[in-house]
Amino acid sequence: MSKPLILVSNDDGITSKGIRVLVETMKRLGDVIVVAPDGPQSGMGHAITIGNTLRLEETDVFKGVPAYECSGTPADCVKIAKHFVLKERRPDLVVSGINHGANTSISVLYSGTMSAAIEAALEGMPAVGFSLCDYSSDADFAHTVEYVEKIAVSVLEKGLSKGVALNVNIPPKRNESIRGIKICRQANAKWQEDFDMRHDPYGRRYFWMAGNFINHDKGEDNDEWAIANNYISVVPCQYDLTAHHAISILNDEWDI
Amino acid sequence: MSKPLILVSNDDGITSKGIRVLVETMKRLGDVIVVAPDGPQSGMGHAITIGNTLRLEETDVFKGVPAYECSGTPADCVKIAKHFVLKERRPDLVVSGINHGANTSISVLYSGTMSAAIEAALEGMPAVGFSLCDYSSDADFAHTVEYVEKIAVSVLEKGLSKGVALNVNIPPKRNESIRGIKICRQANAKWQEDFDMRHDPYGRRYFWMAGNFINHDKGEDNDEWAIANNYISVVPCQYDLTAHHAISILNDEWDI
Repeated sequence: MSKPLILVSNDDGITSKGIRVLVETMKRLGDVIVVAPDGPQSGMGHAITIGNTLRLEETDVFKGVPAYECSGTPADCVKIAKHFVLKERRPDLVVSGINHGANTSISVLYSGTMSAAIEAALEGMPAVGFSLCDYSSDADFAHTVEYVEKIAVSVLEKGLSKGVALNVNIPPKRNESIRGIKICRQANAKWQEDFDMRHDPYGRRYFWMAGNFINHDKGEDNDEWAIANNYISVVPCQYDLTAHHAISILNDEWDI
Repeated sequence: MSKPLILVSNDDGITSKGIRVLVETMKRLGDVIVVAPDGPQSGMGHAITIGNTLRLEETDVFKGVPAYECSGTPADCVKIAKHFVLKERRPDLVVSGINHGANTSISVLYSGTMSAAIEAALEGMPAVGFSLCDYSSDADFAHTVEYVEKIAVSVLEKGLSKGVALNVNIPPKRNESIRGIKICRQANAKWQEDFDMRHDPYGRRYFWMAGNFINHDKGEDNDEWAIANNYISVVPCQYDLTAHHAISILNDEWDI
């Protein structure tokens, strides 16, 4: 029996620590191909490159693993992987990450990591985005490996519902080991931005966007709760954005 | 009674034809403030600017209307509008567009127009993204005005459900007038990409992403059907991406 084919991408760029850990872990499960951005693409959401060109270059950054670096966004990487690199070969699994930082709750909208997974899902491929909830520059990814492998094996064995990609967030390394895996909903939390205004050497103003993360969610069935309580969160995500419950409300209320 | 405050943004850039039509229309309904990208931001999805600076400059491109051009994405524009331009003033309505081209079905994921509306929705502001399903360079926006105004008035009068933004697509100008407005779900359709490989003057290859739009949806309750049948489509969209139906499936299937 042939080994499963696993496509790996990310948004931190092809030389980041997280994708190295992910590639090493996936090598134990199947044949790996990497198509990832040639530089950081954090916060790119589901952006794609329109009206501009893309570069794609083969690289030997992962010894023995076919790998390509692409000038585009994570969603571009999955598209060019499917249509140009893989051609008629179809991956059994697409994984993205491991992101250096959390992609819980509303961050899923801004996340390049998750856009690669969601792009794969809309092509009908089982897909998972992995993120480590640790922003420190020396973040330790070692404790993630066991769980990344477990979740990837489950998806390879059982597949995923049509139109669904998984958003997996992993707590930072703590003194106690991780308490388990929780299937969750996206928490009701958001960023409260602040804009730090400065002046450049020519006297023109510019801004840095900064801010704090505010959790409005009191539930215990969401991804923020899971991470705070040292569980891995798994949120099934969909790309049908229709607020189905609002259709009848609009039909009733609007006289148009 | 004070007039409603209306924030206008888009993704085609502050000098585009569609935003001029939108600003002129909104001036009849309230006090308008514009914060829009200083250049094209099509296909930017829900990207935000992380690890880079933003510019924001006042401009008199709309005579008598306070307007700011921002170097960032549509989502950045709404964030900086809320936290720096409007400060404690709260818009009664946020409108984005009118996009030069369709944002039906899966395009909502890639759409900068809709990311501005969804960003506003997650700040609790009633928000609508408008798009004209006409890609021709001389696209006529005149027939959209009556409907844009009607929908904006409905939202100002009746509000929107929490967490919902409207994705409004308007058919191109045809010989018969528009048949009406349909509240719809997002169609199950997607792009089938193709990558056109070329070589630059130095012999290095590069790619243009191109492709065709494929509609797999046979229903008559979706936005693609509405546009094809000369109706305006209104899809209520949400930013909770949780595939709630998949939570129990995963809990049952996974032994983790």
